[in-house]
Amino acid sequence: MKRATLAIAIAAAGLALPAAAQRKPEHVIHYRQAAMTMIGWNFGVLAAMVKGKTPWGAQEFALRADRIAGLAPQVLEGFAKGSDKGATTDAKPGIWTHFDDFTAKDKNLVEQTRALAEIAKGGDAAAMKEQFKKTAEACKDCHEKYKAD
Amino acid sequence: MKRATLAIAIAAAGLALPAAAQRKPEHVIHYRQAAMTMIGWNFGVLAAMVKGKTPWGAQEFALRADRIAGLAPQVLEGFAKGSDKGATTDAKPGIWTHFDDFTAKDKNLVEQTRALAEIAKGGDAAAMKEQFKKTAEACKDCHEKYKAD
Repeated sequence: MKRATLAIAIAAAGLALPAAAQRKPEHVIHYRQAAMTMIGWNFGVLAAMVKGKTPWGAQEFALRADRIAGLAPQVLEGFAKGSDKGATTDAKPGIWTHFDDFTAKDKNLVEQTRALAEIAKGGDAAAMKEQFKKTAEACKDCHEKYKAD
Repeated sequence: MKRATLAIAIAAAGLALPAAAQRKPEHVIHYRQAAMTMIGWNFGVLAAMVKGKTPWGAQEFALRADRIAGLAPQVLEGFAKGSDKGATTDAKPGIWTHFDDFTAKDKNLVEQTRALAEIAKGGDAAAMKEQFKKTAEACKDCHEKYKAD
């Protein structure tokens, strides 16, 4: 079973979130910040290439896109209910009062990153840049509403 | 191309580490701590099941093992040369003076986690627990030598 498919199956079975929910809020917050750091680290490599700040490398792009696609489905359990407080966090309380909307945005992120990884396998630079943009928009769409400046 | 195979190909091409080496040391340190946090988060779920603290769940175990196997190859670039200082870190300086030994231990971690994910797909609880132990030993083997208490 593919990584993403398995993750969806587990999420559908309601297993992942309860496991996280048993953690202390500060641990959940620390975990979600780690997930964001890892996504940002890899996304930064793509952004530098897309913006021409570093040389274009299709293989490097594909590796980073694959890692981001693997990390994205790991984000949601970092927002388990009860983790709105407990440590310094940029996550706005609206996440938990509008959790359906938040999870829809999270789902979009997962889908866009999966598409990015798939497209990157093909090595078509124009298509990769186009999907990079859609992925960046998925990040921005959620951050604008739910992340403190 | 499979995730791990691609990662190895990139590492062999020397692409991943130079990309990381361009970052500021404090960012590299922050990144490696994030990778360790994410691995620890997932490994904790496995440990709780293996120790009988939470109910055994083969599907949950397989998901976590798969995530760990995806994260493990992302650790090494968090130890890029020059990242021995720059922020609070538990990483001992010996990592960079014995980098071949360190990378051999990292390689063992990657292999043990990959085996864990593969075995977990089979759902044989005894085999999963046995490989969990080997994976934990790979962590310990490196931490004992290269991680400050």
